[in-house]
Amino acid sequence: MAGSVFGKQFVVSTWGESHGKGVGVTIDGCPAGLPLTEDVIQPYLNRRKPGQTRYSTPRKEEDLVEILSGVFEGKTTGTPVSMVVYNTSQRSKDYSEIMNVYRPGHADYTFDEKYGFRDYRGGGRSSGRETISRVAAGAVAVELLKQLGISVQAYAKKIGGIEAVKIRPEDIMKSPLYMPDLEASERAEIMLEEKMKQHDSVGGVIECVVKGMPVGVGEPVFDKLDASLAKAVMSIGAVKGVEIGDGFCAADSFGAENNDAFRMDENGNVIKETNHAGGVLGGLSDGTDIILRAAVKPTPSIARVQHTVNRDGEETDITIHGRHDPIIVPRAVVVVEAMTAITLVDLLFASMTARLDRLIDFFGR
Amino acid sequence: MAGSVFGKQFVVSTWGESHGKGVGVTIDGCPAGLPLTEDVIQPYLNRRKPGQTRYSTPRKEEDLVEILSGVFEGKTTGTPVSMVVYNTSQRSKDYSEIMNVYRPGHADYTFDEKYGFRDYRGGGRSSGRETISRVAAGAVAVELLKQLGISVQAYAKKIGGIEAVKIRPEDIMKSPLYMPDLEASERAEIMLEEKMKQHDSVGGVIECVVKGMPVGVGEPVFDKLDASLAKAVMSIGAVKGVEIGDGFCAADSFGAENNDAFRMDENGNVIKETNHAGGVLGGLSDGTDIILRAAVKPTPSIARVQHTVNRDGEETDITIHGRHDPIIVPRAVVVVEAMTAITLVDLLFASMTARLDRLIDFFGR
Amino acid sequence: MAGSVFGKQFVVSTWGESHGKGVGVTIDGCPAGLPLTEDVIQPYLNRRKPGQTRYSTPRKEEDLVEILSGVFEGKTTGTPVSMVVYNTSQRSKDYSEIMNVYRPGHADYTFDEKYGFRDYRGGGRSSGRETISRVAAGAVAVELLKQLGISVQAYAKKIGGIEAVKIRPEDIMKSPLYMPDLEASERAEIMLEEKMKQHDSVGGVIECVVKGMPVGVGEPVFDKLDASLAKAVMSIGAVKGVEIGDGFCAADSFGAENNDAFRMDENGNVIKETNHAGGVLGGLSDGTDIILRAAVKPTPSIARVQHTVNRDGEETDITIHGRHDPIIVPRAVVVVEAMTAITLVDLLFASMTARLDRLIDFFGR
Amino acid sequence: MAGSVFGKQFVVSTWGESHGKGVGVTIDGCPAGLPLTEDVIQPYLNRRKPGQTRYSTPRKEEDLVEILSGVFEGKTTGTPVSMVVYNTSQRSKDYSEIMNVYRPGHADYTFDEKYGFRDYRGGGRSSGRETISRVAAGAVAVELLKQLGISVQAYAKKIGGIEAVKIRPEDIMKSPLYMPDLEASERAEIMLEEKMKQHDSVGGVIECVVKGMPVGVGEPVFDKLDASLAKAVMSIGAVKGVEIGDGFCAADSFGAENNDAFRMDENGNVIKETNHAGGVLGGLSDGTDIILRAAVKPTPSIARVQHTVNRDGEETDITIHGRHDPIIVPRAVVVVEAMTAITLVDLLFASMTARLDRLIDFFGR
Repeated sequence: MAGSVFGKQFVVSTWGESHGKGVGVTIDGCPAGLPLTEDVIQPYLNRRKPGQTRYSTPRKEEDLVEILSGVFEGKTTGTPVSMVVYNTSQRSKDYSEIMNVYRPGHADYTFDEKYGFRDYRGGGRSSGRETISRVAAGAVAVELLKQLGISVQAYAKKIGGIEAVKIRPEDIMKSPLYMPDLEASERAEIMLEEKMKQHDSVGGVIECVVKGMPVGVGEPVFDKLDASLAKAVMSIGAVKGVEIGDGFCAADSFGAENNDAFRMDENGNVIKETNHAGGVLGGLSDGTDIILRAAVKPTPSIARVQHTVNRDGEETDITIHGRHDPIIVPRAVVVVEAMTAITLVDLLFASMTARLDRLIDFFGR
Repeated sequence: MAGSVFGKQFVVSTWGESHGKGVGVTIDGCPAGLPLTEDVIQPYLNRRKPGQTRYSTPRKEEDLVEILSGVFEGKTTGTPVSMVVYNTSQRSKDYSEIMNVYRPGHADYTFDEKYGFRDYRGGGRSSGRETISRVAAGAVAVELLKQLGISVQAYAKKIGGIEAVKIRPEDIMKSPLYMPDLEASERAEIMLEEKMKQHDSVGGVIECVVKGMPVGVGEPVFDKLDASLAKAVMSIGAVKGVEIGDGFCAADSFGAENNDAFRMDENGNVIKETNHAGGVLGGLSDGTDIILRAAVKPTPSIARVQHTVNRDGEETDITIHGRHDPIIVPRAVVVVEAMTAITLVDLLFASMTARLDRLIDFFGR
Repeated sequence: MAGSVFGKQFVVSTWGESHGKGVGVTIDGCPAGLPLTEDVIQPYLNRRKPGQTRYSTPRKEEDLVEILSGVFEGKTTGTPVSMVVYNTSQRSKDYSEIMNVYRPGHADYTFDEKYGFRDYRGGGRSSGRETISRVAAGAVAVELLKQLGISVQAYAKKIGGIEAVKIRPEDIMKSPLYMPDLEASERAEIMLEEKMKQHDSVGGVIECVVKGMPVGVGEPVFDKLDASLAKAVMSIGAVKGVEIGDGFCAADSFGAENNDAFRMDENGNVIKETNHAGGVLGGLSDGTDIILRAAVKPTPSIARVQHTVNRDGEETDITIHGRHDPIIVPRAVVVVEAMTAITLVDLLFASMTARLDRLIDFFGR
Repeated sequence: MAGSVFGKQFVVSTWGESHGKGVGVTIDGCPAGLPLTEDVIQPYLNRRKPGQTRYSTPRKEEDLVEILSGVFEGKTTGTPVSMVVYNTSQRSKDYSEIMNVYRPGHADYTFDEKYGFRDYRGGGRSSGRETISRVAAGAVAVELLKQLGISVQAYAKKIGGIEAVKIRPEDIMKSPLYMPDLEASERAEIMLEEKMKQHDSVGGVIECVVKGMPVGVGEPVFDKLDASLAKAVMSIGAVKGVEIGDGFCAADSFGAENNDAFRMDENGNVIKETNHAGGVLGGLSDGTDIILRAAVKPTPSIARVQHTVNRDGEETDITIHGRHDPIIVPRAVVVVEAMTAITLVDLLFASMTARLDRLIDFFGR
């Protein structure tokens, strides 16, 4: 596959460019019987929509989703669910500069080398609008997981070096940065204002927590739960690192402190005293919260003069016009949830054939 | 696939348990004409073999590889290359304790839940011996990359918090820890001695550098080069985090400093003034060095009393006997190289169909 | 994958129902640089459009294709090519009968059992309209093959037992049945008129010939060229059998007559004296014409009273109203071409990595 | 994948050459808990072993299977099941003639073109010994299906034009040709004797019947049950055609006779009055017997002078020495069963995620 298809059983296939007719996604393998309408999906898309706060590009994009197939009488039919978001606000404008000049930190140069030419309008296929397709598919995955008692929630853990220390899930939506520590959120806003004045941009860390996973999901060796999540999340545009549980801190710790001791809870379930492992042992879910973090680089589009080269191999300068997101972390929060959810559904499905006794039960129905 | 198959065109399928008859791997999709014998592969396996230094388990394992198919007259034939390493030193011993009791930090509990029972001898499928198959396949991938002018080299970047600052590739093999800064290596050894006395274990960070990649390898959206590498490396047993280029540091930096300015070199090639991106732009290789890091947790097997539970759901204590690696970073260095190389071959193959003009050249031969 | 995704490198993902908003397809892995517009694709769709002759349903369906992504300035960009055909003539009507009653020879019963319910309007996902997506993707594949010097042509070989004996490719388009033997075509038309009066339907055989294939395409063992084509063609709705070369006749022949002797032609190329094998030896193309045939069952929708059961498990009768194709062979001819072409592109791509010397040439460019 | 890997969830990966060290297979995705030992698998291999009757090559090959992994205490563990059959009787001999000369009807020429050279000893990878791997994996699949109440049985339907008319399953094993009509079997034997005297070979048709399939297995559109079976069976060496139900006869029939009317049986199950469809409607199993047939060409190795060319592009003659099977149909019967069973397991697994209500049941356990 050439990169726009994801998953083995819950197969997500995306398409679309920033300034083409639209962006879309088809899910092959969505089970029949899931309640689904545009109203279910739209709120997810609204969370990544620009123009929600002063910390994202003020471009107006409605990003209204339309379901084209796979739903009948309000429920999925088991056949492919195709969804489209037509591009409406992408007005034609002058692209003469970025057409021939490579923006630092962007994929202009690598696309030209790979394909010989590129749709340069607004980044084309490498635009952040590509994540609309992920979020639409992710919304379906999140809804499916809910039906199985599993929740996925992400938030901004760190912005421009300022970290959310007290995580209060109920405060996530109160912060314009989706930061669950309102005091940290306010400090981050002040810092952002400063950086915006300097025509600079800021990075951050997104944390995602999954609750309710059954034990044993994920496959040993290559398709480990954490490995699969790492790919899913690292495939999001600006993500430069992924860690699970204590992650890079575990590398600096010692065995006696890093091991999570097992215990029994009052209901007779196996639990752990700590969760340094982030809910994964040997690549399989261990029944505790899955915790992952993604490092997001600062937005590469900044309104400063930058050194670069053009298509003809000449050195030149570039100034990127227009107003861009000074930070993409808040808008990427729902994208991390989406990719996490899509991955979990695929691995849940894969886990169903692990035991003959359960197969006999299933087919003996 | 149930997790033991990796890759789309250079397809690696592994099998085997710690104390079964052996471990092995089949590569489907290895091009014909690559010089290959056991002598080519064995040195890679020797680098992960235990008992090389006092910082690894003193178990004697010869780990001799045997090629069973796919090679004729010293060259690959294009048909599947099957390789096996028979288990020779895995003597039967008393497993009565770990048979029923779950070791903290290990996959015992999750395997039992997933499969209903497990081969408990020496960790079975979740043993570190599983990586023998990866290294054997990785050796073939590294040899193939060499033929295309691409090199892959990993080393210990950090051990127990002690970091290699001055990276001298020529010193890697001089350090018993594969640490390319001999001064740091010595300090790390002292620290390791201390921890071994305390019956504790240590983690670390492995860094891997790829040189000579053509521009444009990797696929946009889901199969990005960095995302694919993240999965490959995160799938190695004790790895808890992966980052590319500046990784998690990029999350704390600002756009003006994180963007890599483009320049032309004296040969008319596009280069970058810096490489914060780690050789990947928009998920595609940009022609500069690919740099990734893996966080490795401390070995979970430590000779201390630990709290845990048994198969019957009773709380108990466990003491793991035998001598285990106080650190697995040095032995995992070649595993990181292997997984990196396997991934690169697969993506190089995928990149061949990106342009019609090159297809016409290829088939017009 | 749940069945609507096809191919490994040229990945075709289809969606849509007969009476939903439309049907569509996304191709992931189409090389950059292929000239492509709606005008290129539409003629292929017109060949399967109903209402072209009196031997197909007189329903008016424009079936106009729209390209939504992956094309810029008239050429493919290497990113996913998404295409849609909106359903326009599917007027709402009374489905109360087939909603609850299972049509013999249709997928109504099996869909209900598999998914719990179904979009019963016009057959939903199991409608013949699903093949629009195949033809749109197939058109792209055929255009791509043309650029590599490979042609694909199918035609009606047999209709209602009447066989085309003298195959004149130039006559295919002159026959309303796409039968390259006009005398046989006329006899078949007379027979069809008779069957239509009897409210009955007719089956037939489609033959497909591929010219210009390089030698060695196809993969040994499971992904043989003929095996891959068999799946592709058998996956078309009414196809009940596939054969290559002499096919079932080979089963009745003897080795001395079935083997094709090799010879050299005047240009120094290896040729064969005969082609009983149909262009495939050991699963790989042998450089001669690839010849395959598909058996198409008679249209199951016939305007006669038929015995059946309903959703409540009661026996009942059904009379299918509306006018249906008395034969689907002519409209399926282009679908066989499409599936053949899609398969060939995928296997051509797979064949590129078979030899190290060619890889070195390719990457040394 | 390069052709030696089959399946999506029950993933079979084969390797080995005729005169290398052995042939083998790894199954990734075999559920835990299936009773499995060499004794279970060996009888399947014995059915394809040469030298059983005078109608197969008298070569002595023991073909003893050894399980290398994935089984513990007599049951599968859920991890990869690796099996090997070492080549023991493949004595070195003089291959100078076939080394450089292409045998008609064999893959010598196409392998040389694809890979640049080949392991010419006994056919190498394209030898019939490759099917040992299929049969070993198929044995596991058949055992798994048994546990789910599904049986697979193949037999010789036709040999050299002589057809088994009265199918008595209990007679299959009584016929040296695995022909369930003993009278036809005797006539076929006489014909075979005649052909052997003429140094000629014979083809035939294998029929396979599956009983006990649940309704709704198979995926719509591309991964239809019949399409998947067609690929699986067509991928067996000498198979040139595959049909389901009435197959090519359906192409000559009319709708009124080809449709199978539905009925209710005494237990309230939906049944069909006839089974022209061969147990598949719309690509999904319909609960009745699945019936498929494979056309097998006559053995290409015949002891006659044949025209051919050599590696240097010179015309020459070849006489194939040694005694070869005058017919491969009887030995291929178990191979057809194997490929059918492997395919069914994979599609059964895929079918488990079709309905949300069943997922909720499964995970709510």
